[in-house]
Amino acid sequence: MSNMTEAQPGNFYAIGIGPGASDLLTVRAVKIIESVDVILSPQAEGANRSLALAAIQPYLGQQELKTINYPMKRDEQSTQQRWDAVAEDVLAQCKEGKSVAMVTIGDPLIFATTSYLLQGLAKEMDKSRIQVVPGISAFQIAASRFHDPLTLQEDRLMLMSATDLDAVEAALDHCETLVLYKAGGVINELLNLLEKNRLLSSARLVSCAEQSVGELVINDLSDFSPDKMSYMTTMIIHCGRRNWQA
Amino acid sequence: MSNMTEAQPGNFYAIGIGPGASDLLTVRAVKIIESVDVILSPQAEGANRSLALAAIQPYLGQQELKTINYPMKRDEQSTQQRWDAVAEDVLAQCKEGKSVAMVTIGDPLIFATTSYLLQGLAKEMDKSRIQVVPGISAFQIAASRFHDPLTLQEDRLMLMSATDLDAVEAALDHCETLVLYKAGGVINELLNLLEKNRLLSSARLVSCAEQSVGELVINDLSDFSPDKMSYMTTMIIHCGRRNWQA
Repeated sequence: MSNMTEAQPGNFYAIGIGPGASDLLTVRAVKIIESVDVILSPQAEGANRSLALAAIQPYLGQQELKTINYPMKRDEQSTQQRWDAVAEDVLAQCKEGKSVAMVTIGDPLIFATTSYLLQGLAKEMDKSRIQVVPGISAFQIAASRFHDPLTLQEDRLMLMSATDLDAVEAALDHCETLVLYKAGGVINELLNLLEKNRLLSSARLVSCAEQSVGELVINDLSDFSPDKMSYMTTMIIHCGRRNWQA
Repeated sequence: MSNMTEAQPGNFYAIGIGPGASDLLTVRAVKIIESVDVILSPQAEGANRSLALAAIQPYLGQQELKTINYPMKRDEQSTQQRWDAVAEDVLAQCKEGKSVAMVTIGDPLIFATTSYLLQGLAKEMDKSRIQVVPGISAFQIAASRFHDPLTLQEDRLMLMSATDLDAVEAALDHCETLVLYKAGGVINELLNLLEKNRLLSSARLVSCAEQSVGELVINDLSDFSPDKMSYMTTMIIHCGRRNWQA
Protein backbone atom coordinates (compact mmCIF):
# COMPACT_ATOMS: atom_id res chain seq x y z
CA MET A 1 0.00 0.00 0.00
CA SER A 2 3.07 2.25 0.10
CA ASN A 3 2.07 3.95 -3.16
CA MET A 4 -1.13 5.13 -1.51
CA THR A 5 0.52 7.05 1.29
CA GLU A 6 1.26 10.23 -0.66
CA ALA A 7 -1.74 12.35 -1.54
CA GLN A 8 -2.69 11.92 -5.21
CA PRO A 9 -4.04 14.69 -7.50
CA GLY A 10 -7.82 14.85 -7.62
CA ASN A 11 -8.30 12.65 -4.58
CA PHE A 12 -10.09 13.31 -1.29
CA TYR A 13 -8.86 12.01 2.06
CA ALA A 14 -10.92 11.76 5.25
CA ILE A 15 -8.24 11.53 7.89
CA GLY A 16 -8.70 10.58 11.51
CA ILE A 17 -6.00 12.23 13.58
CA GLY A 18 -6.74 10.65 16.97
CA PRO A 19 -7.47 12.40 20.26
CA GLY A 20 -5.30 15.49 19.86
CA ALA A 21 -1.60 14.71 20.44
CA SER A 22 0.54 15.09 17.35
CA ASP A 23 2.22 11.71 17.84
CA LEU A 24 -1.07 9.79 17.96
CA LEU A 25 -1.65 10.17 14.22
CA THR A 26 -0.79 7.12 12.14
CA VAL A 27 2.25 7.29 9.88
CA ARG A 28 -0.13 7.10 6.90
CA ALA A 29 -2.14 10.08 8.12
CA VAL A 30 1.05 12.12 8.58
CA LYS A 31 2.33 11.28 5.06
CA ILE A 32 -0.95 12.26 3.43
CA ILE A 33 -1.22 15.48 5.43
CA GLU A 34 2.37 16.41 4.57
CA SER A 35 1.83 15.87 0.84
CA VAL A 36 -1.73 17.12 0.30
CA ASP A 37 -2.57 20.42 -1.43
CA VAL A 38 -5.54 21.57 0.65
CA ILE A 39 -6.42 20.77 4.27
CA LEU A 40 -9.92 21.35 5.64
CA SER A 41 -10.14 21.66 9.38
CA PRO A 42 -13.56 21.69 11.04
CA GLN A 43 -14.41 24.15 13.80
CA ALA A 44 -17.75 24.16 15.55
CA GLU A 45 -19.41 27.58 15.67
CA GLY A 46 -18.55 29.18 19.00
CA ALA A 47 -15.34 27.18 19.52
CA ASN A 48 -12.29 29.38 20.02
CA ARG A 49 -9.78 27.02 18.46
CA SER A 50 -9.52 24.00 16.23
CA LEU A 51 -8.18 21.01 18.14
CA ALA A 52 -7.51 19.27 14.86
CA LEU A 53 -5.36 22.12 13.60
CA ALA A 54 -3.27 22.12 16.78
CA ALA A 55 -2.67 18.38 16.45
CA ILE A 56 -1.37 18.57 12.88
CA GLN A 57 0.73 21.71 13.38
CA PRO A 58 4.10 19.85 13.20
CA TYR A 59 3.16 18.50 9.78
CA LEU A 60 2.19 21.79 8.14
CA GLY A 61 4.22 23.51 5.45
CA GLN A 62 2.94 24.85 2.15
CA GLN A 63 -0.52 23.28 2.26
CA GLU A 64 -3.50 25.57 1.84
CA LEU A 65 -5.53 25.61 5.08
CA LYS A 66 -9.27 26.16 5.20
CA THR A 67 -11.32 26.30 8.36
CA ILE A 68 -14.80 24.84 7.93
CA ASN A 69 -17.23 26.39 10.36
CA TYR A 70 -20.30 24.34 11.07
CA PRO A 71 -23.30 24.67 13.40
CA MET A 72 -23.51 22.41 16.46
CA LYS A 73 -27.24 21.98 15.96
CA ARG A 74 -29.07 18.72 16.52
CA ASP A 75 -30.78 19.14 13.17
CA GLU A 76 -30.23 16.58 10.43
CA GLN A 77 -31.34 18.73 7.53
CA SER A 78 -29.31 21.88 8.22
CA THR A 79 -26.28 19.77 9.12
CA GLN A 80 -26.36 17.79 5.88
CA GLN A 81 -27.00 20.99 3.88
CA ARG A 82 -23.92 22.63 5.38
CA TRP A 83 -21.74 19.64 4.53
CA ASP A 84 -23.22 19.24 1.06
CA ALA A 85 -22.00 22.78 0.38
CA VAL A 86 -18.53 21.79 1.59
CA ALA A 87 -18.73 18.72 -0.65
CA GLU A 88 -19.41 20.95 -3.68
CA ASP A 89 -16.30 22.95 -2.86
CA VAL A 90 -14.19 19.80 -2.41
CA LEU A 91 -15.43 18.42 -5.74
CA ALA A 92 -14.52 21.63 -7.55
CA GLN A 93 -11.00 21.56 -6.17
CA CYS A 94 -10.50 17.87 -6.94
CA LYS A 95 -11.69 18.50 -10.50
CA GLU A 96 -8.92 21.12 -10.79
CA GLY A 97 -6.49 18.33 -9.91
CA LYS A 98 -5.87 19.31 -6.32
CA SER A 99 -5.68 16.78 -3.52
CA VAL A 100 -7.87 17.65 -0.53
CA ALA A 101 -7.87 16.27 3.01
CA MET A 102 -10.34 16.80 5.81
CA VAL A 103 -8.84 16.21 9.26
CA THR A 104 -11.02 14.98 12.12
CA ILE A 105 -10.33 14.47 15.79
CA GLY A 106 -10.75 10.76 16.50
CA ASP A 107 -11.90 8.45 13.71
CA PRO A 108 -13.76 9.87 10.66
CA LEU A 109 -16.50 7.23 10.86
CA ILE A 110 -17.23 7.31 14.62
CA PHE A 111 -19.50 10.19 15.64
CA ALA A 112 -17.71 12.55 13.27
CA THR A 113 -18.98 15.38 11.10
CA THR A 114 -16.72 14.05 8.34
CA SER A 115 -19.35 11.39 7.79
CA TYR A 116 -21.76 14.05 6.47
CA LEU A 117 -19.11 15.29 4.06
CA LEU A 118 -18.49 11.71 2.87
CA GLN A 119 -22.23 11.27 2.35
CA GLY A 120 -22.29 14.47 0.30
CA LEU A 121 -19.31 13.40 -1.80
CA ALA A 122 -20.64 9.88 -2.38
CA LYS A 123 -23.37 11.33 -4.59
CA GLU A 124 -20.95 12.81 -7.11
CA MET A 125 -17.41 11.52 -6.71
CA ASP A 126 -16.03 8.17 -7.80
CA LYS A 127 -15.43 5.97 -4.79
CA SER A 128 -11.89 5.12 -5.90
CA ARG A 129 -10.95 8.79 -5.48
CA ILE A 130 -11.91 8.82 -1.81
CA GLN A 131 -9.77 7.30 0.93
CA VAL A 132 -10.68 7.07 4.61
CA VAL A 133 -7.79 6.80 7.07
CA PRO A 134 -8.89 5.60 10.52
CA GLY A 135 -7.75 7.33 13.69
CA ILE A 136 -7.54 6.45 17.38
CA SER A 137 -10.98 7.14 18.87
CA ALA A 138 -11.53 8.72 22.30
CA PHE A 139 -12.61 5.47 23.95
CA GLN A 140 -9.32 3.85 23.04
CA ILE A 141 -7.16 6.55 24.60
CA ALA A 142 -9.49 6.68 27.63
CA ALA A 143 -9.14 2.92 28.15
CA SER A 144 -5.36 3.15 27.78
CA ARG A 145 -5.21 5.24 30.96
CA PHE A 146 -6.56 2.37 33.08
CA HIS A 147 -4.72 -0.60 31.49
CA ASP A 148 -7.67 -2.94 31.82
CA PRO A 149 -9.33 -4.64 28.87
CA LEU A 150 -12.31 -3.14 27.08
CA THR A 151 -13.20 -6.60 25.83
CA LEU A 152 -11.96 -10.16 26.29
CA GLN A 153 -13.33 -13.56 25.32
CA GLU A 154 -17.10 -13.17 24.72
CA ASP A 155 -17.53 -9.63 26.04
CA ARG A 156 -19.77 -7.19 24.22
CA LEU A 157 -18.73 -3.55 23.94
CA MET A 158 -21.37 -0.89 23.41
CA LEU A 159 -20.41 2.60 22.29
CA MET A 160 -23.01 5.38 22.31
CA SER A 161 -23.67 9.00 23.16
CA ALA A 162 -24.68 9.71 26.77
CA THR A 163 -27.40 12.10 25.65
CA ASP A 164 -30.42 9.80 25.94
CA LEU A 165 -30.43 8.55 29.54
CA ASP A 166 -33.19 5.98 29.03
CA ALA A 167 -31.18 4.40 26.24
CA VAL A 168 -28.08 4.44 28.45
CA GLU A 169 -29.89 2.62 31.26
CA ALA A 170 -31.27 0.04 28.84
CA ALA A 171 -27.79 -0.56 27.42
CA LEU A 172 -26.44 -1.65 30.81
CA ASP A 173 -28.31 -4.95 30.39
CA HIS A 174 -26.98 -5.71 26.93
CA CYS A 175 -23.21 -5.40 27.14
CA GLU A 176 -20.26 -6.07 29.40
CA THR A 177 -18.55 -2.75 28.71
CA LEU A 178 -20.50 0.42 28.03
CA VAL A 179 -18.66 3.43 26.64
CA LEU A 180 -20.42 6.79 26.71
CA TYR A 181 -19.29 9.76 24.63
CA LYS A 182 -20.35 13.35 25.44
CA ALA A 183 -20.78 12.42 29.10
CA GLY A 184 -19.81 15.89 30.35
CA GLY A 185 -23.15 17.60 29.81
CA VAL A 186 -25.18 15.02 31.75
CA ILE A 187 -22.61 13.97 34.34
CA ASN A 188 -24.83 14.38 37.41
CA GLU A 189 -27.67 12.45 35.81
CA LEU A 190 -25.19 9.71 34.88
CA LEU A 191 -23.83 9.52 38.43
CA ASN A 192 -27.39 9.09 39.74
CA LEU A 193 -28.03 6.37 37.20
CA LEU A 194 -24.84 4.53 38.15
CA GLU A 195 -25.62 4.76 41.86
CA LYS A 196 -29.10 3.36 41.29
CA ASN A 197 -27.55 0.44 39.37
CA ARG A 198 -24.70 -0.04 41.91
CA LEU A 199 -22.10 0.62 39.22
CA LEU A 200 -20.36 3.73 40.57
CA SER A 201 -17.20 1.85 41.52
CA SER A 202 -17.13 0.05 38.15
CA ALA A 203 -17.22 3.26 36.14
CA ARG A 204 -14.29 5.37 35.00
CA LEU A 205 -13.96 8.65 33.26
CA VAL A 206 -11.50 10.60 31.12
CA SER A 207 -11.82 14.18 29.85
CA CYS A 208 -9.71 15.87 27.18
CA ALA A 209 -7.12 13.08 26.96
CA GLU A 210 -4.01 14.05 24.97
CA GLN A 211 -5.28 17.56 24.33
CA SER A 212 -2.36 19.30 26.07
CA VAL A 213 -4.57 20.98 28.68
CA GLY A 214 -7.43 19.91 30.92
CA GLU A 215 -6.85 16.15 31.01
CA LEU A 216 -8.84 14.58 33.82
CA VAL A 217 -8.65 10.87 34.71
CA ILE A 218 -11.01 9.41 37.35
CA ASN A 219 -10.44 5.76 38.18
CA ASP A 220 -13.51 5.20 40.32
CA LEU A 221 -16.61 7.42 40.40
CA SER A 222 -17.69 6.49 43.96
CA ASP A 223 -16.51 9.74 45.52
CA PHE A 224 -16.50 11.94 42.44
CA SER A 225 -18.25 15.31 42.74
CA PRO A 226 -17.91 17.14 39.46
CA ASP A 227 -18.09 20.86 39.12
CA LYS A 228 -18.24 21.69 35.44
CA MET A 229 -17.10 19.16 32.90
CA SER A 230 -15.93 19.24 29.30
CA TYR A 231 -18.28 18.04 26.60
CA MET A 232 -15.35 15.83 25.53
CA THR A 233 -15.71 13.39 28.41
CA THR A 234 -15.68 9.64 27.90
CA MET A 235 -17.10 7.27 30.51
CA ILE A 236 -16.28 3.56 30.61
CA ILE A 237 -18.67 1.38 32.62
CA HIS A 238 -17.66 -2.23 33.32
CA CYS A 239 -21.01 -3.98 33.71
CA GLY A 240 -19.48 -7.46 33.97
CA ARG A 241 -17.52 -10.04 32.04
CA ARG A 242 -18.70 -12.76 29.72
CA ASN A 243 -16.26 -15.63 29.66
CA TRP A 244 -15.77 -18.23 26.98
CA GLN A 245 -18.85 -20.39 26.67
CA ALA A 246 -18.25 -24.14 26.72
CA MET B 1 3.81 14.24 26.13
CA SER B 2 6.85 14.32 23.83
CA ASN B 3 9.15 13.14 26.62
CA MET B 4 7.13 9.94 26.89
CA THR B 5 7.64 8.84 23.32
CA GLU B 6 11.07 7.27 23.79
CA ALA B 7 11.12 4.02 25.70
CA GLN B 8 12.35 4.55 29.27
CA PRO B 9 14.52 2.10 31.26
CA GLY B 10 12.53 -0.29 33.45
CA ASN B 11 9.23 0.47 31.72
CA PHE B 12 6.78 -1.81 29.95
CA TYR B 13 4.82 -0.79 26.85
CA ALA B 14 1.72 -2.51 25.48
CA ILE B 15 1.64 -1.30 21.91
CA GLY B 16 -1.21 -1.61 19.46
CA ILE B 17 0.18 -1.68 15.94
CA GLY B 18 -3.08 -1.63 13.97
CA PRO B 19 -4.31 -4.12 11.35
CA GLY B 20 -0.97 -5.09 9.82
CA ALA B 21 0.35 -2.40 7.46
CA SER B 22 3.54 -0.73 8.67
CA ASP B 23 2.18 2.75 8.06
CA LEU B 24 -0.92 2.23 10.20
CA LEU B 25 1.07 2.38 13.45
CA THR B 26 0.88 5.69 15.28
CA VAL B 27 3.98 7.89 15.37
CA ARG B 28 4.16 7.23 19.13
CA ALA B 29 4.14 3.46 18.63
CA VAL B 30 6.93 3.73 16.06
CA LYS B 31 9.09 5.89 18.36
CA ILE B 32 8.73 3.50 21.28
CA ILE B 33 9.41 0.44 19.13
CA GLU B 34 12.50 2.08 17.63
CA SER B 35 13.94 2.96 21.04
CA VAL B 36 12.95 -0.03 23.19
CA ASP B 37 15.44 -2.71 24.34
CA VAL B 38 13.26 -5.81 24.08
CA ILE B 39 10.27 -6.51 21.83
CA LEU B 40 7.86 -9.36 22.56
CA SER B 41 5.84 -10.53 19.61
CA PRO B 42 2.98 -12.97 20.19
CA GLN B 43 2.43 -15.96 17.93
CA ALA B 44 -0.45 -18.38 18.39
CA GLU B 45 0.60 -22.02 18.47
CA GLY B 46 0.19 -23.46 14.98
CA ALA B 47 0.55 -20.10 13.20
CA ASN B 48 3.36 -20.07 10.65
CA ARG B 49 4.24 -16.39 11.02
CA SER B 50 3.79 -13.42 13.28
CA LEU B 51 1.69 -10.73 11.62
CA ALA B 52 2.85 -8.28 14.26
CA LEU B 53 6.50 -8.90 13.46
CA ALA B 54 5.91 -8.33 9.74
CA ALA B 55 4.18 -5.01 10.47
CA ILE B 56 7.03 -3.62 12.58
CA GLN B 57 9.85 -4.87 10.31
CA PRO B 58 10.75 -1.36 9.00
CA TYR B 59 11.30 -0.17 12.56
CA LEU B 60 13.66 -2.92 13.71
CA GLY B 61 17.34 -2.43 14.38
CA GLN B 62 19.27 -3.54 17.46
CA GLN B 63 16.27 -4.46 19.62
CA GLU B 64 16.19 -7.94 21.12
CA LEU B 65 13.25 -9.88 19.65
CA LYS B 66 11.38 -12.59 21.51
CA THR B 67 8.52 -14.61 20.10
CA ILE B 68 5.90 -15.48 22.70
CA ASN B 69 4.08 -18.66 21.78
CA TYR B 70 0.70 -19.09 23.37
CA PRO B 71 -2.09 -21.63 23.10
CA MET B 72 -5.29 -20.68 21.23
CA LYS B 73 -7.41 -22.49 23.79
CA ARG B 74 -10.73 -21.23 25.07
CA ASP B 75 -9.59 -21.86 28.61
CA GLU B 76 -9.29 -18.98 31.05
CA GLN B 77 -7.01 -20.68 33.54
CA SER B 78 -4.35 -22.04 31.18
CA THR B 79 -4.38 -18.77 29.21
CA GLN B 80 -3.82 -16.61 32.27
CA GLN B 81 -1.13 -19.02 33.55
CA ARG B 82 0.78 -18.73 30.28
CA TRP B 83 0.69 -14.95 30.39
CA ASP B 84 1.54 -14.80 34.10
CA ALA B 85 4.75 -16.64 33.21
CA VAL B 86 5.46 -14.04 30.52
CA ALA B 87 4.74 -11.32 33.08
CA GLU B 88 7.40 -12.80 35.42
CA ASP B 89 9.92 -12.64 32.61
CA VAL B 90 8.97 -9.04 31.75
CA LEU B 91 9.28 -8.02 35.40
CA ALA B 92 12.75 -9.56 35.66
CA GLN B 93 13.94 -7.67 32.61
CA CYS B 94 12.42 -4.37 33.73
CA LYS B 95 14.13 -4.81 37.13
CA GLU B 96 17.44 -5.08 35.26
CA GLY B 97 16.67 -1.68 33.79
CA LYS B 98 15.61 -2.81 30.35
CA SER B 99 12.63 -1.35 28.53
CA VAL B 100 10.25 -3.96 27.18
CA ALA B 101 7.43 -3.66 24.62
CA MET B 102 4.78 -6.15 23.64
CA VAL B 103 3.37 -5.53 20.15
CA THR B 104 -0.21 -6.51 19.33
CA ILE B 105 -2.17 -6.49 16.10
CA GLY B 106 -5.05 -4.03 16.55
CA ASP B 107 -5.54 -2.37 19.93
CA PRO B 108 -4.05 -3.93 23.10
CA LEU B 109 -7.33 -3.58 25.03
CA ILE B 110 -9.79 -4.89 22.42
CA PHE B 111 -9.92 -8.70 22.25
CA ALA B 112 -6.15 -8.91 22.64
CA THR B 113 -3.96 -11.40 24.48
CA THR B 114 -1.94 -8.44 25.73
CA SER B 115 -4.74 -7.87 28.21
CA TYR B 116 -3.77 -11.08 30.04
CA LEU B 117 -0.17 -9.92 30.23
CA LEU B 118 -1.30 -6.55 31.61
CA GLN B 119 -3.42 -8.35 34.21
CA GLY B 120 -0.38 -10.40 35.20
CA LEU B 121 1.84 -7.33 35.44
CA ALA B 122 -0.71 -5.31 37.42
CA LYS B 123 -0.17 -7.59 40.41
CA GLU B 124 3.52 -6.73 40.77
CA MET B 125 4.52 -3.70 38.74
CA ASP B 126 3.91 -0.06 39.57
CA LYS B 127 1.25 1.36 37.27
CA SER B 128 3.38 4.38 36.39
CA ARG B 129 5.90 2.03 34.75
CA ILE B 130 3.32 0.67 32.33
CA GLN B 131 2.10 2.52 29.26
CA VAL B 132 -0.60 1.37 26.86
CA VAL B 133 -0.50 2.80 23.34
CA PRO B 134 -3.78 2.31 21.44
CA GLY B 135 -3.84 1.00 17.88
CA ILE B 136 -6.31 1.02 14.98
CA SER B 137 -8.69 -1.89 15.56
CA ALA B 138 -9.95 -4.18 12.78
CA PHE B 139 -13.46 -2.68 12.76
CA GLN B 140 -12.04 0.75 11.98
CA ILE B 141 -10.06 -0.37 8.96
CA ALA B 142 -12.99 -2.52 7.81
CA ALA B 143 -15.35 0.47 7.97
CA SER B 144 -12.84 2.65 6.13
CA ARG B 145 -13.26 0.44 3.04
CA PHE B 146 -16.94 1.40 2.71
CA HIS B 147 -16.82 5.12 3.59
CA ASP B 148 -20.10 5.07 5.47
CA PRO B 149 -20.41 6.01 9.13
CA LEU B 150 -20.21 3.45 11.91
CA THR B 151 -22.12 5.84 14.15
CA LEU B 152 -23.80 9.22 13.83
CA GLN B 153 -26.10 11.22 16.11
CA GLU B 154 -27.68 8.77 18.61
CA ASP B 155 -26.52 5.51 17.02
CA ARG B 156 -25.32 2.68 19.22
CA LEU B 157 -22.38 0.57 18.08
CA MET B 158 -21.98 -2.96 19.42
CA LEU B 159 -18.71 -4.83 19.04
CA MET B 160 -18.54 -8.53 19.88
CA SER B 161 -17.20 -11.90 18.79
CA ALA B 162 -19.37 -13.82 16.31
CA THR B 163 -18.85 -17.06 18.21
CA ASP B 164 -22.14 -17.18 20.14
CA LEU B 165 -24.90 -16.99 17.52
CA ASP B 166 -27.74 -16.57 20.01
CA ALA B 167 -25.99 -13.55 21.48
CA VAL B 168 -25.41 -12.19 17.97
CA GLU B 169 -29.11 -12.48 17.11
CA ALA B 170 -30.10 -10.79 20.37
CA ALA B 171 -27.70 -7.94 19.71
CA LEU B 172 -29.47 -7.02 16.46
CA ASP B 173 -32.27 -5.52 18.55
CA HIS B 174 -30.04 -3.38 20.76
CA CYS B 175 -27.82 -1.40 18.42
CA GLU B 176 -27.81 0.42 15.09
CA THR B 177 -24.44 -0.96 13.98
CA LEU B 178 -23.27 -4.42 14.94
CA VAL B 179 -19.64 -5.33 14.40
CA LEU B 180 -18.65 -9.00 14.61
CA TYR B 181 -15.07 -10.17 15.01
CA LYS B 182 -13.94 -13.71 14.18
CA ALA B 183 -16.81 -14.05 11.68
CA GLY B 184 -14.85 -16.41 9.39
CA GLY B 185 -15.42 -19.61 11.34
CA VAL B 186 -19.22 -19.27 11.44
CA ILE B 187 -19.83 -17.47 8.17
CA ASN B 188 -22.56 -19.78 6.84
CA GLU B 189 -24.45 -19.68 10.14
CA LEU B 190 -24.18 -15.86 10.08
CA LEU B 191 -25.49 -15.65 6.52
CA ASN B 192 -28.51 -17.75 7.52
CA LEU B 193 -29.10 -15.50 10.51
CA LEU B 194 -28.92 -12.37 8.35
CA GLU B 195 -31.28 -13.82 5.77
CA LYS B 196 -33.80 -14.69 8.47
CA ASN B 197 -33.60 -11.12 9.77
CA ARG B 198 -33.67 -9.58 6.25
CA LEU B 199 -30.30 -7.94 6.81
CA LEU B 200 -28.18 -9.58 4.10
CA SER B 201 -28.03 -6.43 1.97
CA SER B 202 -27.21 -4.29 5.03
CA ALA B 203 -24.19 -6.36 6.00
CA ARG B 204 -20.63 -5.98 4.82
CA LEU B 205 -17.49 -7.92 5.34
CA VAL B 206 -13.73 -7.48 5.29
CA SER B 207 -11.04 -10.16 5.71
CA CYS B 208 -7.33 -9.63 6.32
CA ALA B 209 -7.41 -5.88 5.63
CA GLU B 210 -3.96 -4.31 5.31
CA GLN B 211 -2.20 -7.62 5.80
CA SER B 212 -0.44 -7.58 2.40
CA VAL B 213 -2.15 -10.78 1.17
CA GLY B 214 -5.68 -12.15 1.19
CA GLU B 215 -7.66 -8.93 1.60
CA LEU B 216 -11.31 -9.52 0.79
CA VAL B 217 -13.94 -6.75 0.76
CA ILE B 218 -17.62 -7.61 0.25
CA ASN B 219 -19.96 -4.64 0.04
CA ASP B 220 -23.25 -6.52 0.16
CA LEU B 221 -23.71 -10.09 1.35
CA SER B 222 -26.88 -10.80 -0.70
CA ASP B 223 -25.12 -12.94 -3.29
CA PHE B 224 -22.08 -13.95 -1.32
CA SER B 225 -21.22 -17.66 -1.28
CA PRO B 226 -18.10 -18.15 0.78
CA ASP B 227 -15.79 -21.06 0.36
CA LYS B 228 -13.31 -20.99 3.21
CA MET B 229 -12.76 -17.80 5.16
CA SER B 230 -10.02 -16.40 7.37
CA TYR B 231 -10.60 -16.33 11.09
CA MET B 232 -9.67 -12.63 10.81
CA THR B 233 -12.94 -11.60 9.20
CA THR B 234 -14.90 -8.59 10.40
CA MET B 235 -18.58 -8.18 9.60
CA ILE B 236 -20.41 -4.85 9.85
CA ILE B 237 -24.21 -5.04 10.03
CA HIS B 238 -26.19 -1.82 9.67
CA CYS B 239 -29.39 -2.57 11.61
CA GLY B 240 -30.75 0.98 11.29
CA ARG B 241 -30.11 4.57 12.29
CA ARG B 242 -31.14 6.43 15.40
CA ASN B 243 -31.42 10.11 14.69
CA TRP B 244 -31.19 12.97 17.12
CA GLN B 245 -34.08 12.83 19.56
CA ALA B 246 -36.02 16.08 19.94
